[in-house]
Amino acid sequence: MGVGEAAVFHILQEGGVTVPKGFRAGGLHCGLKKSGRNDLGVILCEVPAVAAGVYTTNVFQAAPLKVTRESIASDGRLRAVVVNSGNANACTGQQGEADAYAMRAATAAAFGLAELDVAVASTGVIGELLPMDRVHSGIAALPAAISADGNGAEQFSQAILTTDLVKKEICVSLTVDGREVMIAGAAKGSGMIHPNMATMLAFMTTDAEVEPQALRQLLGEVTDVTFNMITVDGDTSTNDMLVAMASGLAGNRPLQPGHRDWAAFAAAFRHVCRHLAQAIARDGEGATRLVEVTVQGAVTDLSARAIAKTVIGSSLVKSAMFGADANWGRIIAAVGRAGEPVNPDTVDIRLGDIVVLEGSRPVPFDEDEALVYLQGDTVHIHVDLHHGSGTATAWGCDLTYDYVRINAAYRT
Amino acid sequence: MGVGEAAVFHILQEGGVTVPKGFRAGGLHCGLKKSGRNDLGVILCEVPAVAAGVYTTNVFQAAPLKVTRESIASDGRLRAVVVNSGNANACTGQQGEADAYAMRAATAAAFGLAELDVAVASTGVIGELLPMDRVHSGIAALPAAISADGNGAEQFSQAILTTDLVKKEICVSLTVDGREVMIAGAAKGSGMIHPNMATMLAFMTTDAEVEPQALRQLLGEVTDVTFNMITVDGDTSTNDMLVAMASGLAGNRPLQPGHRDWAAFAAAFRHVCRHLAQAIARDGEGATRLVEVTVQGAVTDLSARAIAKTVIGSSLVKSAMFGADANWGRIIAAVGRAGEPVNPDTVDIRLGDIVVLEGSRPVPFDEDEALVYLQGDTVHIHVDLHHGSGTATAWGCDLTYDYVRINAAYRT
Repeated sequence: MGVGEAAVFHILQEGGVTVPKGFRAGGLHCGLKKSGRNDLGVILCEVPAVAAGVYTTNVFQAAPLKVTRESIASDGRLRAVVVNSGNANACTGQQGEADAYAMRAATAAAFGLAELDVAVASTGVIGELLPMDRVHSGIAALPAAISADGNGAEQFSQAILTTDLVKKEICVSLTVDGREVMIAGAAKGSGMIHPNMATMLAFMTTDAEVEPQALRQLLGEVTDVTFNMITVDGDTSTNDMLVAMASGLAGNRPLQPGHRDWAAFAAAFRHVCRHLAQAIARDGEGATRLVEVTVQGAVTDLSARAIAKTVIGSSLVKSAMFGADANWGRIIAAVGRAGEPVNPDTVDIRLGDIVVLEGSRPVPFDEDEALVYLQGDTVHIHVDLHHGSGTATAWGCDLTYDYVRINAAYRT
Repeated sequence: MGVGEAAVFHILQEGGVTVPKGFRAGGLHCGLKKSGRNDLGVILCEVPAVAAGVYTTNVFQAAPLKVTRESIASDGRLRAVVVNSGNANACTGQQGEADAYAMRAATAAAFGLAELDVAVASTGVIGELLPMDRVHSGIAALPAAISADGNGAEQFSQAILTTDLVKKEICVSLTVDGREVMIAGAAKGSGMIHPNMATMLAFMTTDAEVEPQALRQLLGEVTDVTFNMITVDGDTSTNDMLVAMASGLAGNRPLQPGHRDWAAFAAAFRHVCRHLAQAIARDGEGATRLVEVTVQGAVTDLSARAIAKTVIGSSLVKSAMFGADANWGRIIAAVGRAGEPVNPDTVDIRLGDIVVLEGSRPVPFDEDEALVYLQGDTVHIHVDLHHGSGTATAWGCDLTYDYVRINAAYRT
């Protein structure tokens, strides 16, 4: 977040997706997880919310994605999104598709909505059919489980988790047209860092009135610099989904580019996404620290993004971060293989404030100081290419024994 | 190797780069490795050998690569290649370049050659200057250390290793124009699987007479389907180099496409490269098993290569292989994110002979049988896309606790 951005919105100490006006949420256990933890959740909006979605680029897309695309495409609005964890409903063929449609129909019936007003998301193991009797019982019980208070948001946040160690939610407020506007989000982490259950899901609510086209475009742009910058080991799941809903109940004039408060809204929206993305990276499987890679001086922002993602995705860089080893050779080797324009003689690298490479040549540094810095819970790697004005930041985590342990023994 | 290929050449039980006529080799310890193991080696040809090279695509190319390119480009022939391990002479600026030229000049002087007849290669840590006094002493002692027998090849093979657990060499023989032709190779492993020292080096010798243009083209084509298919975690080093030298002393008519024995020579040449590539993958850092991924039914061979490399490079697939876990969800997710044309409904996956996915749907299989198979020392993953006629094979290894341990603690 730039210095200028901080002034325009306020981060609430607590509160989730039910803080924006018009939203209720809830979650319960219906029997998809053996642990007894919540495995079914819903967010409900009391009015048709302007909605936008972003989906995985994987060729193998799970059944719920088709259903959600169809619901959002129909009139650009949603009243509800229903989510289950414990089963991804992916690689499940015709029956899986029928099951996803049945989840939508059952949720619509339970809340008295049209089917096309309901989105569906799933996360969990791949290749197994949903036990639909349990899903139906759970959905029937959802209306009694939702509330507009913090508990509703909490139950929902819990219901979407799989191997996550912590829930991930945030709420920010800002002023638009003199009125208070809230933007909130909840996520479960996977993406590429935390891919055990093979899914990243994120849900955003706001009570701002936003033009549909403006919301769609903002969601895409912000995803590119937040959620899409945590594709740490490159593993794009079959179920990734991000859905945003805007109730419009804050009473502001419709937000779109040109509105005097558009920039503030976009900054707050971006902050919510960045916070959730960082939280996912930090909670990566086996992770002991968050690693942030900033690239500047690339020929374009796109080029900077490719380089930043190559560095954060390198198993060698990630292993070195686990070992708190100031191994800049790993970093420059990753920069050099990213396939992007780089001047081999002008690269600077810093670890936090510690300069380790200048003009592509090693700089003597204090190893003890570096060790202390790299043992912290957040490590910043700065790469300046001095080759243009493109910049980007990517987030990931270290590669640890626990990552291997978790993923070696996952399915069995 | 196809069935038809096996018949045209013979694999020697032992023997390395000195078996082809005209080559001597040797190695010694000059003080670059603390362990006291060989760290300097040379291959010498008694006549100017037709030579070809393939180099890393990394933007940051180590100093020796520039020197070797220049030597090979001058007249397409080499008399010697000198190699040190323990120091990569990479990111060492002007001084590093001067040192690489000095290594070439010293080797030329020691053996009475022209400087442009000598190639130079280095492998080891990045960013440190070579201790040139030790290098000069070592080079001066090389003439007394070389021989045309197995010991010379052995000493050379040892001299190029870094963290490799085993030396990698092979020699095959075939008949060309009724004469016996030998092709041999030695390699040290790194590439992307074994990137501790950030380098893959390979050296090939043959006594065949080969047209320079034909050798260059063959080397490039074969590299694409062998060494370039073990780029396991995508880490391309600053020092990768493959040099082939053909002495022509076997007395055959010059080999080139159109020669009746060209296909046999190309098959034998490819076998040498594939053997060395597999040996590098199997000796990957921390590896407990070799993993071979074959993709067929892709739209083109290039597309099949991209998919095979995505699967073999996936940390999730590699972790599952370490755990002997038949987790086909990891495999299909990697196939789906490779960015290549895939029909999401027609993918088959086998682990050895065990079918786990057919038409993109799970197939019940015997978990115990799968566990036994996956605990073997070589695992074959077969992916059939049923979407074209493109095929490819890639090699890698599993991702283990030891990989993390080695790379977390590498530099310190």
